[in-house]
Amino acid sequence: MSLAALTPPWGSVLCHRDSHINNDECGAPEFFTGGAKLIALGGENAKIDADELQAAVHHKVGDVHSVQPSVLSLTQATETGAVYTPAEIGHLAGIAKHAGLRVHMDGARLANAVAALGCNPAELTWRAGVDILSFGATKNGGITADAIVVFDRSVTTELSFRAKRAGQLASKMRFAAAQLDAYLADDLWLRNARHANAMTARLEGGLKSIPGTRLAGTQANILFCRLPQQIIDGLLDQGYGFYHGRWEPCVVRFVTSFATTTHDVDALVHAVRRLTAAAIEESRSKSGSNADGR
Amino acid sequence: MSLAALTPPWGSVLCHRDSHINNDECGAPEFFTGGAKLIALGGENAKIDADELQAAVHHKVGDVHSVQPSVLSLTQATETGAVYTPAEIGHLAGIAKHAGLRVHMDGARLANAVAALGCNPAELTWRAGVDILSFGATKNGGITADAIVVFDRSVTTELSFRAKRAGQLASKMRFAAAQLDAYLADDLWLRNARHANAMTARLEGGLKSIPGTRLAGTQANILFCRLPQQIIDGLLDQGYGFYHGRWEPCVVRFVTSFATTTHDVDALVHAVRRLTAAAIEESRSKSGSNADGR
Amino acid sequence: MSLAALTPPWGSVLCHRDSHINNDECGAPEFFTGGAKLIALGGENAKIDADELQAAVHHKVGDVHSVQPSVLSLTQATETGAVYTPAEIGHLAGIAKHAGLRVHMDGARLANAVAALGCNPAELTWRAGVDILSFGATKNGGITADAIVVFDRSVTTELSFRAKRAGQLASKMRFAAAQLDAYLADDLWLRNARHANAMTARLEGGLKSIPGTRLAGTQANILFCRLPQQIIDGLLDQGYGFYHGRWEPCVVRFVTSFATTTHDVDALVHAVRRLTAAAIEESRSKSGSNADGR
Amino acid sequence: MSLAALTPPWGSVLCHRDSHINNDECGAPEFFTGGAKLIALGGENAKIDADELQAAVHHKVGDVHSVQPSVLSLTQATETGAVYTPAEIGHLAGIAKHAGLRVHMDGARLANAVAALGCNPAELTWRAGVDILSFGATKNGGITADAIVVFDRSVTTELSFRAKRAGQLASKMRFAAAQLDAYLADDLWLRNARHANAMTARLEGGLKSIPGTRLAGTQANILFCRLPQQIIDGLLDQGYGFYHGRWEPCVVRFVTSFATTTHDVDALVHAVRRLTAAAIEESRSKSGSNADGR
Repeated sequence: MSLAALTPPWGSVLCHRDSHINNDECGAPEFFTGGAKLIALGGENAKIDADELQAAVHHKVGDVHSVQPSVLSLTQATETGAVYTPAEIGHLAGIAKHAGLRVHMDGARLANAVAALGCNPAELTWRAGVDILSFGATKNGGITADAIVVFDRSVTTELSFRAKRAGQLASKMRFAAAQLDAYLADDLWLRNARHANAMTARLEGGLKSIPGTRLAGTQANILFCRLPQQIIDGLLDQGYGFYHGRWEPCVVRFVTSFATTTHDVDALVHAVRRLTAAAIEESRSKSGSNADGR
Repeated sequence: MSLAALTPPWGSVLCHRDSHINNDECGAPEFFTGGAKLIALGGENAKIDADELQAAVHHKVGDVHSVQPSVLSLTQATETGAVYTPAEIGHLAGIAKHAGLRVHMDGARLANAVAALGCNPAELTWRAGVDILSFGATKNGGITADAIVVFDRSVTTELSFRAKRAGQLASKMRFAAAQLDAYLADDLWLRNARHANAMTARLEGGLKSIPGTRLAGTQANILFCRLPQQIIDGLLDQGYGFYHGRWEPCVVRFVTSFATTTHDVDALVHAVRRLTAAAIEESRSKSGSNADGR
Repeated sequence: MSLAALTPPWGSVLCHRDSHINNDECGAPEFFTGGAKLIALGGENAKIDADELQAAVHHKVGDVHSVQPSVLSLTQATETGAVYTPAEIGHLAGIAKHAGLRVHMDGARLANAVAALGCNPAELTWRAGVDILSFGATKNGGITADAIVVFDRSVTTELSFRAKRAGQLASKMRFAAAQLDAYLADDLWLRNARHANAMTARLEGGLKSIPGTRLAGTQANILFCRLPQQIIDGLLDQGYGFYHGRWEPCVVRFVTSFATTTHDVDALVHAVRRLTAAAIEESRSKSGSNADGR
Repeated sequence: MSLAALTPPWGSVLCHRDSHINNDECGAPEFFTGGAKLIALGGENAKIDADELQAAVHHKVGDVHSVQPSVLSLTQATETGAVYTPAEIGHLAGIAKHAGLRVHMDGARLANAVAALGCNPAELTWRAGVDILSFGATKNGGITADAIVVFDRSVTTELSFRAKRAGQLASKMRFAAAQLDAYLADDLWLRNARHANAMTARLEGGLKSIPGTRLAGTQANILFCRLPQQIIDGLLDQGYGFYHGRWEPCVVRFVTSFATTTHDVDALVHAVRRLTAAAIEESRSKSGSNADGR
């Protein structure tokens, strides 16, 4: 709905190729916008590359044969857990604004980014040029409640009609919306996010010393990790669940939340450690028997 | 979403001119279907007239210049609180089915209809020819939770994609959906509806003896009532809230729910009674002073 | 496309219930607008009733549960051949404009209206408040060529993108568009329309004296006519083709064009006259034989 | 319209990243399909790579978070003038069909491909697995007339409604459609295409011996050519028009048609030759004066 308020049907939405809106919404942006096109850009750690953006905002502008660049969509923190600094957002938003586009932020993990950077949310949003924000409470403690935060007030009326007609003005919604009051009171949203980030940091700290384990750096509550296949299989056998097989072989993704406990983290680290030790032992005994056998 | 699963974009949805989908959804059916057209039919008490339906299902079939009749949509109980009998639904659904249309039921008040008729829900739905049902929990105790009940299973897969892409596969939805377990257990949904119907009956009983008050007959939890404007104004002054001014002058609508108490009802009846008495008194004293003045 | 440029998807288009856009476009307005709703108004001779319009422009404005009145669409000449005067257009457009709507004219027979009124096209369009006009050449001599005339220039850029993306920027379109040069040069479009109107007038003159024939008054190139069924059947037998059976029984519609000749008209009048004479003769002889038989 | 008949709104269309539908339709496929997504695949010479297709047809099938692979779209001849053989089409279509997709062919240059291969059109279309074909007359002699050829007859009825509602059932269309009779009679379409191909071959023959000119191989009526910038500028100065600056620097595209004459081709070759000679001369004299200056 946010994107639909910012682009005409013949517009394009410039986003990262790893972005949730591009990969995981079953075409919802296309549905809500009446057929706008998502243009996938590259960049490290799911952060949009400024040079690619610079080229994309000017692509075929004014040419009726092409969709017209209309919105820049940034995800904060990104789908890989990286965090844009206020300066980075300002730079990308500036490129977009200068070319007449508006700026959307998918803030599904905004709380984690604010917690990671220790900055004011305003620095990551409207002060940096963001026009509209999907606030994102459901990954951080909320239940079927979320909020669109509108900084460009020219679209507020339109959004109320778009919401109703899309079945997003739920009956008795006030009972779900009330969560937001608690969520924002006493910085609960930030406390939840700080906890989630801390759990990922704890996980990182626990795993990094284990032989055979390689970690991508993390800034928020997502940790990508390369593990031997044997260890992955062992964790799955023990009932652990996590995404794997969607990236390179042997790469898994761990995500922590407000509900993750230190016990949860330590148990996972312990499990990896034991599986690794067993694998080393098995490997040695194989080598040994091979040696004996010679 | 239900209608979208039953009609192509060039189809038409035959519904009552007073139906919620025609008047109160800000064009949601048009949005979800990709531009299908609602054809508004007449009939007493917001129940579709069978003769009008018979004509409509054959209107310009096969003519590319016209939208094609694709779905019959019935509301049970209707927007005025009337109830279709199983035979009536069967008759209307039969006309639709015979002409190749499918049948949707807006069951926002289905529980009230089941409670009023004392029949099995199946008799009002799939056994009578309904293909898909909007179950409607939020008027009867639910919070932001509802269900689409699919009897024509050919559309189930499609609906899962439609739901996701329409933003109707909410994050953490299981916590909202859990309400349905409680709602259906021990007939809570029917007990709620019976209570709501009983409260409307009690209201009807209380109001009908008051001079100047005229009631439409009711079968469910909606009571249309004609009151003198002076009484309406008096109730509003006392803080009562209800729809008025949307139908003929001096017609108001009272709706009771699972949460309406006998105290609520009796207080309203009492308020109408007192206001009426005061009005009669005032009228008499005016007549008196007039008489005196002569 | 014109309507889509004037209304958001949650808007409504106020039009006559007999209008072409409401009945004969297979939902094209709904498709192009992304699901806007057509609100059908009444009025004599397919001309919109001003009082109904006055009520409709204010219907549920600002209420998110309802589509929002956005466009008034007038057909000139109307689908029954009636003609709005400049004052009538100005009055209706004024009601719309005052309420914030914009005004579309379906000018499929605009040439016939201009010819009938002998006025300047500007008086029927932009001077009277029309924002956008479907010019309508194909009923008056053009082949797969037409024009949208935009008076409210704020929508021109948008229309160029809408046209391309709707497949309405045809390859080699300049060869079709060239017709418009000839069409407008030397008032060919008006000469064609005057001829068509004259042929309808000639037909009216020829038919009105024939017993059993009743004519609706006509102002342009459409003549509605009530004929005995026997005469209708006789004409069909002779190979004449015309719409019948779409209105009341025994009502037929004759439409003349730039290509209709006086010979064509006179032959039809002659055919009706002969068929009528034969029917009278047959009726008399039946009466006679009945008399004899007694 | 063809794509819309083959995919649901939550489907994806697998096409080459250089395809016309992906780059040059202002989002028309997204508009007509109600928001389906185009997935851009790679491959040499704008021909889809079979391995990429194989991966794409299975991508997230059954996962509601993702659009579902629904159509393969092939362009014949491709946007760079390459030609798929019947075997290549059969192989790609087979991958698509095996995974449950249907196959669309953008045949804007089908005639050129048929002419180049000397085969029967059936071998390139339905016999190879194509379900629906955009026939493409307007690049080869037609004026605002084209045809969709449907091999999978299950979509014919649907297409007639889609056409009408998209404004593609033009008034008086028969006069435009009549061109197709002449186009197909006596193989005019193939004679036109053979001529266009021959003119490109002639151009290739003429240019290849000119120093500094490098040509991509061509199979149809498109020739990509690398020229020194000085030569490009010289041609533009002389009034030649062609696309340049859209690919790598100094790459231009020449397209020939039924209307291109040997004189046109020879004049262009002559112009390039003269400009090249002049450039060489200038270069020599500069070198000479440099030498003198030492």
